[in-house]
Amino acid sequence: MDIIQSVLNGDKRSIAKLITLVEEKSDDATKILKTIYKYTGRARTIGITGAPGSGKSSLVNKLTHILREKNKKVGIIAVDPTSPFTGGAILGDRIRMQDLTLDEGVFIRSMGTRGALGGLSRACYDAVKVLDASGMDYIIIETVGVGQSEIDIVKLADIVLLVMVPGMGDDVQAIKAGIMEIGDIFVVNKSDKDGADRLVTEIEMTLDLSPHKNSWKPPVIKTIATETYGIVELSENIEKVWNHMTQGDYLKIKRKNRIRQEIIDLLTETLIKKMMSRYSEKIDALVEKVLERQIDPYSAMEIIISDAK
Amino acid sequence: MDIIQSVLNGDKRSIAKLITLVEEKSDDATKILKTIYKYTGRARTIGITGAPGSGKSSLVNKLTHILREKNKKVGIIAVDPTSPFTGGAILGDRIRMQDLTLDEGVFIRSMGTRGALGGLSRACYDAVKVLDASGMDYIIIETVGVGQSEIDIVKLADIVLLVMVPGMGDDVQAIKAGIMEIGDIFVVNKSDKDGADRLVTEIEMTLDLSPHKNSWKPPVIKTIATETYGIVELSENIEKVWNHMTQGDYLKIKRKNRIRQEIIDLLTETLIKKMMSRYSEKIDALVEKVLERQIDPYSAMEIIISDAK
Repeated sequence: MDIIQSVLNGDKRSIAKLITLVEEKSDDATKILKTIYKYTGRARTIGITGAPGSGKSSLVNKLTHILREKNKKVGIIAVDPTSPFTGGAILGDRIRMQDLTLDEGVFIRSMGTRGALGGLSRACYDAVKVLDASGMDYIIIETVGVGQSEIDIVKLADIVLLVMVPGMGDDVQAIKAGIMEIGDIFVVNKSDKDGADRLVTEIEMTLDLSPHKNSWKPPVIKTIATETYGIVELSENIEKVWNHMTQGDYLKIKRKNRIRQEIIDLLTETLIKKMMSRYSEKIDALVEKVLERQIDPYSAMEIIISDAK
Repeated sequence: MDIIQSVLNGDKRSIAKLITLVEEKSDDATKILKTIYKYTGRARTIGITGAPGSGKSSLVNKLTHILREKNKKVGIIAVDPTSPFTGGAILGDRIRMQDLTLDEGVFIRSMGTRGALGGLSRACYDAVKVLDASGMDYIIIETVGVGQSEIDIVKLADIVLLVMVPGMGDDVQAIKAGIMEIGDIFVVNKSDKDGADRLVTEIEMTLDLSPHKNSWKPPVIKTIATETYGIVELSENIEKVWNHMTQGDYLKIKRKNRIRQEIIDLLTETLIKKMMSRYSEKIDALVEKVLERQIDPYSAMEIIISDAK
């Protein structure tokens, strides 16, 4: 198969083609992914998330330029929000990455959900594998923090950047439990706005109060992405956190969690497909009974499960 | 069990308590839901979705007032977006329903995602069952159209209202494939804004061009919810569509689909739980191998599946 070799050689057209196959969940794609898997694990994956309008795309753009100055190859996966309505404001800032598309050492891909169970995260992680095997040094996954699924994706990256903006209602108290924990680095973007220092203090205080999962405290960095302010400091801190992570077991544990989640997602998908094909008539018959209120849905499920034994 | 009788009697405190049990996925809740299931199926469920800021809450409020004038009991489930960031703007309009909370014939509940697999839709449909058994005549499910999961929920309602607003980027072309199809009634809210008539025309044209799933064409209604403009017409059209649906097989088919989806969700959840407890050691061992690139995740999954046979 030609495509494997050309993906391993970093050919952008082949990379794009394979990611499309991956999104379409073709059998071919799975075969190829199995083959290239042994070439993965070398790239550093960075997840960036934050509310719509927090300037994530600009940050990704500026970070990528710094990585390119160091001659690092960068793959970018921009996960579009799953909104079936336009959400123009959410997607509008993709354009801020356009100048990167001409750079040979940068590959950018937008991915959207297709509504399939576990679909987005699977396609996204398969795309990461493709980019990883193709020789990218860094893979940046940008997700808009509008849904649990986007957060699930980003939290499986090696390093997670949580982007907040002063005065956007992003006060730390308001952020749902569990979100602060996923941040390895906190970015206060648009830090020339009122309240930036208060937001930094709030984040620092919350971090001081919460039990550290790691031996180091996540840095809090002020940036103004549009003016390239704070970007060098941010990239240095990514380096620093990476070193922390690789000195201890942290990276290994994170990657193990990602793999475990992926196996479980694959299992789920496969089991459901099997169930559906093997028991579709049975399910149809039970649906009728449930509709007539002769039986409830839970008991219907239990009947199928006990049959499947 | 006292709670069953008081839910069947329509006691609001008991309803609230049972929905909480349902959200916590307690074993008790499932037992109770099994028992009350035979009392469900009488309420009409109406799903309302649209982009943030399209005025869904105001519409729900005004519709509810009209239903109350006819002495109908109304249960409202407001599904919060799953955003782990604040999304203040998305949630802000809950307050527009506050005047309803004092009405004995109205029950309002906000529900959020907990990130669990199929968690939101299961909890939401269990809540619908509780409200249905409690004697509500109408159950309105309001979801912000920001994610696939919210759309999945609303499209399982008996009648789906798609709310759009002129000039919000909600032009019909921009709406993702598959969304137009789920609308049984189209609402152009804030119709005093520029472009309202054009939006109506666009919707009409799209409906004319697409093959009708039903024997009737979905109505397109102009409203200004805040001024109660168009609300009577909307409620009359809900009645009309209901009559269409019950004359043919349409309602039955929709309800069957909902039940099938629910059984599949329950199956999925149960199967994964079983897998996880039965094969957790095996999965751990395979995770190590995948991490070391001795094996790929797909092959790891296949090993577990073939073992499970």
